[in-house]
Amino acid sequence: MSSTDAARPGAAFGPEVYAARRERAAAHAREAGLAGLLVSPGPDLAYFTGYAPPDTERLTLLAIPAGEPGAKGSASVVVPLLERGDLVSAPGADGLDVVTWRDGDDEHAAAARLLDGTGTYAVSDSTWALHVLGLQRALPDAHFTAFTDAVPTLRAVKDPEEVERLAAAGAAADAAFAQIREVAFAGRRERDVAADLDRFLREHGHEQVDFTLVCAGPNGADPHHDAGDRVIEPGDLVVLDFGGLRDGYGSDTTRTVLVEGGTDDALAAQQREVYDVVRRAQQAGVDAVRPGATCQDVDRAARTVIADAGYGEYFVHRTGHGIGTTTHEPPYMVEGEDRPIEPGMCFSVEPGIYLPGRFGVRIEDIVVAFPPDAPDGARRLNTSTHDLQTVR
Amino acid sequence: MSSTDAARPGAAFGPEVYAARRERAAAHAREAGLAGLLVSPGPDLAYFTGYAPPDTERLTLLAIPAGEPGAKGSASVVVPLLERGDLVSAPGADGLDVVTWRDGDDEHAAAARLLDGTGTYAVSDSTWALHVLGLQRALPDAHFTAFTDAVPTLRAVKDPEEVERLAAAGAAADAAFAQIREVAFAGRRERDVAADLDRFLREHGHEQVDFTLVCAGPNGADPHHDAGDRVIEPGDLVVLDFGGLRDGYGSDTTRTVLVEGGTDDALAAQQREVYDVVRRAQQAGVDAVRPGATCQDVDRAARTVIADAGYGEYFVHRTGHGIGTTTHEPPYMVEGEDRPIEPGMCFSVEPGIYLPGRFGVRIEDIVVAFPPDAPDGARRLNTSTHDLQTVR
Repeated sequence: MSSTDAARPGAAFGPEVYAARRERAAAHAREAGLAGLLVSPGPDLAYFTGYAPPDTERLTLLAIPAGEPGAKGSASVVVPLLERGDLVSAPGADGLDVVTWRDGDDEHAAAARLLDGTGTYAVSDSTWALHVLGLQRALPDAHFTAFTDAVPTLRAVKDPEEVERLAAAGAAADAAFAQIREVAFAGRRERDVAADLDRFLREHGHEQVDFTLVCAGPNGADPHHDAGDRVIEPGDLVVLDFGGLRDGYGSDTTRTVLVEGGTDDALAAQQREVYDVVRRAQQAGVDAVRPGATCQDVDRAARTVIADAGYGEYFVHRTGHGIGTTTHEPPYMVEGEDRPIEPGMCFSVEPGIYLPGRFGVRIEDIVVAFPPDAPDGARRLNTSTHDLQTVR
Repeated sequence: MSSTDAARPGAAFGPEVYAARRERAAAHAREAGLAGLLVSPGPDLAYFTGYAPPDTERLTLLAIPAGEPGAKGSASVVVPLLERGDLVSAPGADGLDVVTWRDGDDEHAAAARLLDGTGTYAVSDSTWALHVLGLQRALPDAHFTAFTDAVPTLRAVKDPEEVERLAAAGAAADAAFAQIREVAFAGRRERDVAADLDRFLREHGHEQVDFTLVCAGPNGADPHHDAGDRVIEPGDLVVLDFGGLRDGYGSDTTRTVLVEGGTDDALAAQQREVYDVVRRAQQAGVDAVRPGATCQDVDRAARTVIADAGYGEYFVHRTGHGIGTTTHEPPYMVEGEDRPIEPGMCFSVEPGIYLPGRFGVRIEDIVVAFPPDAPDGARRLNTSTHDLQTVR
């Protein structure tokens, strides 16, 4: 008996917010020709119910039928008997039909009884294979598809309260960046600076810190380097990529700073040249958020700047990802993603150049598309300067 | 750019241990008539490679072909380009073929090229639906099943080094229980005692504490109650269920203690009666681990004692679950699980009785089945006394 994972910190809203989200989900499902949506523990279930149980081998599943326009959808949840109490006390549980199952029952059959045996259902991306395959077995004539493939914009368009929380998280991350510029870099290990960043994020209201990457000198050339034992040296470029959750919503920002005191003039010149290319690429990515633009347009705009400068082969990742209650979620700013950008989508724009054995540069802001105060473009939720900052 | 979750603390072994595990997995796959196994980030991938990346929307997948007996299986891993470096430096990466994909590629097609398009593959239980459904789309004539359904005993039988680590984790939990009996309960909140338990587990070598349930008085009647603001009172029974990871392997034990100074004699008598039933049920469950026994036999043995005492309806969960690098994993001690118990299986035996509005009792030990020193039965990895302990 135990819960094996802490539930993700909640981001509670009023019951009417959850009910409205489920209504909107039913509309998305209808438009996509689905019989309904099947929602698993994790960010999707928290979004639609405020309920955030650990995701385990025991099936918990919310079914939102597509229903008829205007009809009150009767959403149902299948939940282990032991966890019923936790569910019904969740902030968005009002109006849900609750079906319990006990250890030893066939939980997939219990879920199947709520579903249309010949319909197509979209399931949360992170639903366990154990459960998807169990549902397929229980409903051999039904069809299943993933949220990202069928209803990719379901959580991607943020409502105003969500944008407000993302903005607050971004401002807190900016405040942490302002503080980190005041600490000593040279002579300290990457992980020491990372610990400072962690503390600053928490001081500015983050209840959870998910990552504090500090990648100095050649380590900056590995986009997935974490913070390690390398002692930071004068003249290093240092990529700082950090974020977490504040009031249930994510921050994720990157700045690249220069440690003063370098003596290699040729290196310094290349650092400044590359930095300038990345800065222009990031601006181009943000500027690409225009009426009619698709997600891949953002990627193309940033990538073109870098390619034109001769560094195309050193930009080895997509330009951005959506953000909300998780750090990575749709929409993805990547070649091939030709869905239009919609008002209220929030995502990162984060081009980078990585020169193996030398250094890396990345600049990342979270932006919101077509907000009321900038209806034809994007507004940055991170406003720390893009001018190359020097640290000691 | 970021990793959104910390990797689970590692439990590194030598490369030969991982290679041997993959060989054994290939044999399991052959016996089950599978073309191979598909292993996702999480405990399965860590078990077979020592590699523990965060589990995200970016596909990482280890394919272990069933191969021919005696043949060197050429296991392959599909990994995002950015994470290749992390993978190849994992302790069990020797001998793996590595296939990378980049953002924008069809990662499921990349994985499909390594597979037999008409074979049946077992996938890790927690593989994301996004990836299972993507593989089904890429390989429409292949078949997929979950590990728990196809090869449930793959990680359930622990090798001697694993049993040793589980025993050390159990001993550490027992030491924490010895300490918690010395602290004050009455007048303090459940969460204060939980914080003590957390500290004691860490003092005894746990690098991660996953749960410290402290359920006093009526809260003990909810098997999933955590530790809350209730102030513990004299005469309360308190269910303590706690565990985490020590050296990468799990502890999970429960003891129910009595706070001295109660004045309700009728309650005290019922507490002692129920406690005695649970103690006998737990012993019966452990005693049911005999040659030829199945998993459900353990459940039936414990349940029979409780039912015979008239409390059957108040024992609302299965009797146990496997444990290893995760707290809950196969085998499950539950009605309907008729697979035989095999030597080296490690699992909990944890019957309980929950009287709504009054109190609960649970006693839980981890046991190893048929170890060299007890080849016809089970050895407990928790050895704290089952006599009802009084605390102040």
